[in-house]
Amino acid sequence: MKVYNFSAGPAMLPKEVMEQAQDEFCNFRGTGCGVMELSHRGSQFMEVIQGAEQNVRELMGVSDDYAVLFLQGGASMQFAMLPMNLMAPGGFAEYADTGVWSSKAIKEAKLFGEVKEIASSKATNYDRIPVIRHWKPEAGASYMHITSNNTIAGTQYHAFPPLDNGTPLIADMSSDIMSRVINMNDFGMIYAGAQKNLGPSGVTLVIIRKDLAERCPATVPTMLRYSTHIKEESMFNTPPTFSVYILKLVTDWIKGKGGIAGIEEINDTKSEVLYEVINASSFYNNPVYPESRSRMNVVFRLPSEELEAKFLKEAAAEGMTGLKGHRLVGGIRASIYNAMPLSGVEALVDFMNEFEKKNG
Amino acid sequence: MKVYNFSAGPAMLPKEVMEQAQDEFCNFRGTGCGVMELSHRGSQFMEVIQGAEQNVRELMGVSDDYAVLFLQGGASMQFAMLPMNLMAPGGFAEYADTGVWSSKAIKEAKLFGEVKEIASSKATNYDRIPVIRHWKPEAGASYMHITSNNTIAGTQYHAFPPLDNGTPLIADMSSDIMSRVINMNDFGMIYAGAQKNLGPSGVTLVIIRKDLAERCPATVPTMLRYSTHIKEESMFNTPPTFSVYILKLVTDWIKGKGGIAGIEEINDTKSEVLYEVINASSFYNNPVYPESRSRMNVVFRLPSEELEAKFLKEAAAEGMTGLKGHRLVGGIRASIYNAMPLSGVEALVDFMNEFEKKNG
Repeated sequence: MKVYNFSAGPAMLPKEVMEQAQDEFCNFRGTGCGVMELSHRGSQFMEVIQGAEQNVRELMGVSDDYAVLFLQGGASMQFAMLPMNLMAPGGFAEYADTGVWSSKAIKEAKLFGEVKEIASSKATNYDRIPVIRHWKPEAGASYMHITSNNTIAGTQYHAFPPLDNGTPLIADMSSDIMSRVINMNDFGMIYAGAQKNLGPSGVTLVIIRKDLAERCPATVPTMLRYSTHIKEESMFNTPPTFSVYILKLVTDWIKGKGGIAGIEEINDTKSEVLYEVINASSFYNNPVYPESRSRMNVVFRLPSEELEAKFLKEAAAEGMTGLKGHRLVGGIRASIYNAMPLSGVEALVDFMNEFEKKNG
Repeated sequence: MKVYNFSAGPAMLPKEVMEQAQDEFCNFRGTGCGVMELSHRGSQFMEVIQGAEQNVRELMGVSDDYAVLFLQGGASMQFAMLPMNLMAPGGFAEYADTGVWSSKAIKEAKLFGEVKEIASSKATNYDRIPVIRHWKPEAGASYMHITSNNTIAGTQYHAFPPLDNGTPLIADMSSDIMSRVINMNDFGMIYAGAQKNLGPSGVTLVIIRKDLAERCPATVPTMLRYSTHIKEESMFNTPPTFSVYILKLVTDWIKGKGGIAGIEEINDTKSEVLYEVINASSFYNNPVYPESRSRMNVVFRLPSEELEAKFLKEAAAEGMTGLKGHRLVGGIRASIYNAMPLSGVEALVDFMNEFEKKNG
């Protein structure tokens, strides 16, 4: 049976990537060793990690003013590293609260300085991105932080705060990195755990304007300083070599799809197909404001929890897995990251129509 | 050509492990998904990580007083996390300096409290483990830290400081974890990057006495507190799932070899075979005190750097790779971790005898 894995992350990877990695798993380019057995300082792996960096630079249009880093610890580690490195002593940072992950980022930042909440949709259960033209950024913030896509609430920024006061904009893009074209120069730093759009868990992509990394106080440990990893080109210590290798293959695959613009077109179609079914139905209900809906995580409810349980069970029986909503909010969640083909979304939509007919 | 990879890490993995991982790479136990595509909170992966913990507990005899954690960032991150969590406010810790990695650990600890050097072999180029009966531990240290095996110098502790003053002993065991039987109860905590004896880079094994984790000051970020990961059983955030899976397979493999006692016997034979050739020769020279020699990393010099370059080139041509010594010390280094079979050491020894005959 064909399986479509709608897991929110770790998520499915492109079939071509999985097959290539399997083929060369025990013998990478005639070395007689697998990638994960190679010294990280040998020429074969150096080519892999440099190729991965080059792919990121090309695909996202990253200039030499920025460093591209492959770190460990996921977005959760960045929640702490960011304020440790970038919060000015006695300073403040602006955070928008659009859900669980934003709140976790805020909690860690408070250990290192004052957090001013620039906007929040908490009062309405995170059902939208707060309207950006109402935000009132203050001069002198160390940075402003947003979460570009919210996997649990199913919301996504479709425009970014236009900061013209010198405050660097920082985005946690863990769940929509490389899913759509952005202008890197609008950001001071972005970061993303790889396990949704870029590869397996265990590697974190950080793209940071190099001058920002120089702010870091001398009291921060070596491993937790962006400047360490910039200077050593992500090789201060042993990087998660196999995860970086898969990220390299995934970014090769994105290039083959016409780059991020090509991927974005497919992603737009996928989410439109799914939202159309939800919009046309009174059986399926998406609680998110239409202008804030995520193109990565499509959340919806059925008329009862019993029907939701039945939906999940029958979908799994037809090979559609990972559709259970986050335990904090319940319901159904279809995560349709880059690697999910349109055929997967079409299969889901067919199943949804059929299920509604039988149970609606 | 049969390849023997003597890399110091990331290092070779057992052939059986590599083949099994390749077999089920795209379809893990009939799920239709690879392990790296599975949700970390799904039952399939939960079984993997719980199995990995169970294996570690069984193999190393870890009691319930200790937590077994799978973290990220390697030993380098532990150099910082350890003092952040365990150094008492205004306190001091004792560190033995046996090489580059100890020195790095000391550097990070100094950010969080006083470091008292309990012993050092720096003055003699780290050619030995300082004689333990001469150490003078003080009462009241937050902990004592050692590096159980030193990959660059080629030294290893063959006994551990018998602390009877209540100070917890902490060991960086990155390069000899599970290579020999130890008594876990002699230690307050041990840690190890996986990429030498346990699996791929990207996962760090930490075994810590649970009461020690409670010391952590409230100012330490959530991700950097051992208590966070103990409470959440290594699932506070997305763990490096594929690396944990390989660690599970490697520990299964160790169990199949008669556990750590079985592996230790093979390791003893391997290192004896190699040291015998070096001892019997005036062509090959190992600079380490015999009683401090490592059974994991056997370092040796040839009469000239030219001969060393020739040795490396000809060895590589015969499929013996990764033999170059660390860039800080030069020479030759054969890393013979658990996964290196005796046949690999025998091939190396044959080559060495042949090379000496031709060039000696």
